Amino acid sequence: MQRGGPVEGTPAEGAVFLTALTAGPIARVDIARETGLSSAAVTRVAKLLIDEGYLEYAPDQPATSDETRMGRPSSPLRVHARQTGSFGIIVRRDELIGVVCDLAGAPRVSERRPLAENTVDAAVAAIAAFYRELVARADEAGFVVAPHDLGLSLSGDIDHDTGYVRYSPFLGWRDVDLGAAVSRAIGAPVVVENDVKALTVAEQWFGLGRGITNFAVVTIGTGIGCAIVVDGGLVRGAHSVAGEIGHLPLGDPSVQCHCGAHGCVEAEASTKALLDSCRAATGRDDLTIETAVELARSGDERVRAIFARAGRLIGLALASVANLLGPERVIVAGEGVSSYDLFETAIREAFAEQAFGAAHQVPIHVRDLPFEEWARGAAAVAIQELVFPSRQRVAADVRRRPGVRRV
Amino acid sequence: MQRGGPVEGTPAEGAVFLTALTAGPIARVDIARETGLSSAAVTRVAKLLIDEGYLEYAPDQPATSDETRMGRPSSPLRVHARQTGSFGIIVRRDELIGVVCDLAGAPRVSERRPLAENTVDAAVAAIAAFYRELVARADEAGFVVAPHDLGLSLSGDIDHDTGYVRYSPFLGWRDVDLGAAVSRAIGAPVVVENDVKALTVAEQWFGLGRGITNFAVVTIGTGIGCAIVVDGGLVRGAHSVAGEIGHLPLGDPSVQCHCGAHGCVEAEASTKALLDSCRAATGRDDLTIETAVELARSGDERVRAIFARAGRLIGLALASVANLLGPERVIVAGEGVSSYDLFETAIREAFAEQAFGAAHQVPIHVRDLPFEEWARGAAAVAIQELVFPSRQRVAADVRRRPGVRRV
Ligand SMILES: [Zn+2]
Ligand SMILES: [Zn+2]
Repeated sequence: MQRGGPVEGTPAEGAVFLTALTAGPIARVDIARETGLSSAAVTRVAKLLIDEGYLEYAPDQPATSDETRMGRPSSPLRVHARQTGSFGIIVRRDELIGVVCDLAGAPRVSERRPLAENTVDAAVAAIAAFYRELVARADEAGFVVAPHDLGLSLSGDIDHDTGYVRYSPFLGWRDVDLGAAVSRAIGAPVVVENDVKALTVAEQWFGLGRGITNFAVVTIGTGIGCAIVVDGGLVRGAHSVAGEIGHLPLGDPSVQCHCGAHGCVEAEASTKALLDSCRAATGRDDLTIETAVELARSGDERVRAIFARAGRLIGLALASVANLLGPERVIVAGEGVSSYDLFETAIREAFAEQAFGAAHQVPIHVRDLPFEEWARGAAAVAIQELVFPSRQRVAADVRRRPGVRRV
Repeated sequence: MQRGGPVEGTPAEGAVFLTALTAGPIARVDIARETGLSSAAVTRVAKLLIDEGYLEYAPDQPATSDETRMGRPSSPLRVHARQTGSFGIIVRRDELIGVVCDLAGAPRVSERRPLAENTVDAAVAAIAAFYRELVARADEAGFVVAPHDLGLSLSGDIDHDTGYVRYSPFLGWRDVDLGAAVSRAIGAPVVVENDVKALTVAEQWFGLGRGITNFAVVTIGTGIGCAIVVDGGLVRGAHSVAGEIGHLPLGDPSVQCHCGAHGCVEAEASTKALLDSCRAATGRDDLTIETAVELARSGDERVRAIFARAGRLIGLALASVANLLGPERVIVAGEGVSSYDLFETAIREAFAEQAFGAAHQVPIHVRDLPFEEWARGAAAVAIQELVFPSRQRVAADVRRRPGVRRV
């Protein structure tokens, strides 16, 4: 948590805060059981977090049976939601979507702004302007805007530890020091994360990943993405590459992908690939993805076959994740979910064919999440950064300067 | 560690033992730093482990600089190697390979026995007889044979928590309660693990996985296997399926695999698949894998192309692991490594083509490990079971009966 103050962001502080966040209101005795910390350690850390305003008692909650039995009732703890606002913005090709969450991760403000140009300079200026608007909105809503990170998410190969965008195909960016640039523009620290990984943090804390330790989120749509949680930890990869399910070579080896390789899932199953194929198959260059979906739903077999082929590759990709990692569940999300009916049979058949042994048992859940949920993921990454700081920090100097952005 | 005694197999005991095992001789202050435990906790746990004979002082070691600086020299700790023998046996289609390791994992005895029949009953009887021979050898070698687990490894879909073999294609076994059967036959607890996962535990503790937290081992040969370590933990999968890289559908969709699916890597790149293709291409039904390798080395382009095709699929499989998980390194092992020269160019080219972004940087290490190293992996799993007991135990009742198998 903030450097210099009595709260230091130790693993114990992080564990107690996270347990209160995801399982609160929760009694101290249950926090001790969940975290493996001693009762004495939980009591000491909880007092510190209460004193600093991160946690509070939930006096209306009845005492748990354990505490009653132990003859020492005490109020359960929860995150002090209104202490501070957490900001998350997802950068899409033509739009910024931002939310302000309370410290417990509940969205209190959400906004969208068009992104007219996607040069880096234009995007940084637009993000900074949008952030200032969100700060004003948060201020109106009565939030204390503390100098903790803005969470920023976007698709592509992102180095979370440094805030560096190595490659973002949809924005056309390579080797952009985005975290530092936005941090300079807004005068606050910034944490940058791959959009699917950020969404997965939100699913882990507040969605279908809650309470389980091994799961994967696969997103379909503009890109085919994936993030993986193993033993409760998000897999970030030694080189910040992980979850690149869209570039598994499960498709036609003669089809080249925008990444340069051949046979990638994304080369046949992304929205753009689907649309190109539908236009070629029908000879109708005026098709949009929406009209292509309508055509398929109205029974056009040429178009239905293209969606089924994409569904097959997505199903093989889900089976690949299941065979390699054996998750407790797989969550499918992304804007492509809105036409899941066109993919579903092929996904299920390919998964059933290719899942090995007990991997057949892995359940697939489909989630239709609006982009505000993705932005909430970016805010969750900012909260995560507050709780479990990265070793290498973007703009750590900004964070250490007292008083900056105490709006 | 043993139930009922003062050593209870708590996480702190496990962490201190494992640190002494993999990083010893090591000073208590360094154990505290490595494990995150307090100095007081390390001192308390270390005293217990020394009293019970698991750890000992390494008096010949110079004090570390830290301790000299802190003005309280004390001898570093190491595992008391000769306290107890750890038994590991790998079950292959036609052979059992067994080792006795000291508690520090060093092999002290190794033996091979033919496995004439691979019905379950015959295999259980052969394993039990072999175990008794190994116990006699360990006794001669001066080991105390403590009543801790026999580690057993074999290929296939193994439920490590229960010792159940769900499916082992090369032995032709389905739904075999192997752990319980062998445990009854030898009167000692048994822990069963997939052979590649067991090898990976040995690599993590004693081989190329030492000191790193994210890596994968891929084995080529009779089967194409994989085990994955993420954040220092072996990925076992929620349904005990993980690492099934051999059944990623990266190959020709018209080729059916023994698993029932199509296009599996194993269906074109296993030893049997290679041999079948070489026989078909040359019309020589007398070919063995050894003579096929000779033919390829002597320049037969038909046979070389078959090995190159298999190498290509293996390279795509390595890239798939790198894209999904971003390991720090990938270790290639297995008996197929003896003809790695025939695969190498195709593996490297396919990996370079398909690795996404920074996944290109993942180094590939080739390890020519004899089956004794695999058996050592089974012994390492037995040590792991001693240090970090599974929640569900095979033959926990046997373990709890005092005096059983105190040979
Ligand atoms: Zn690609
Ligand atoms: Zn297969």
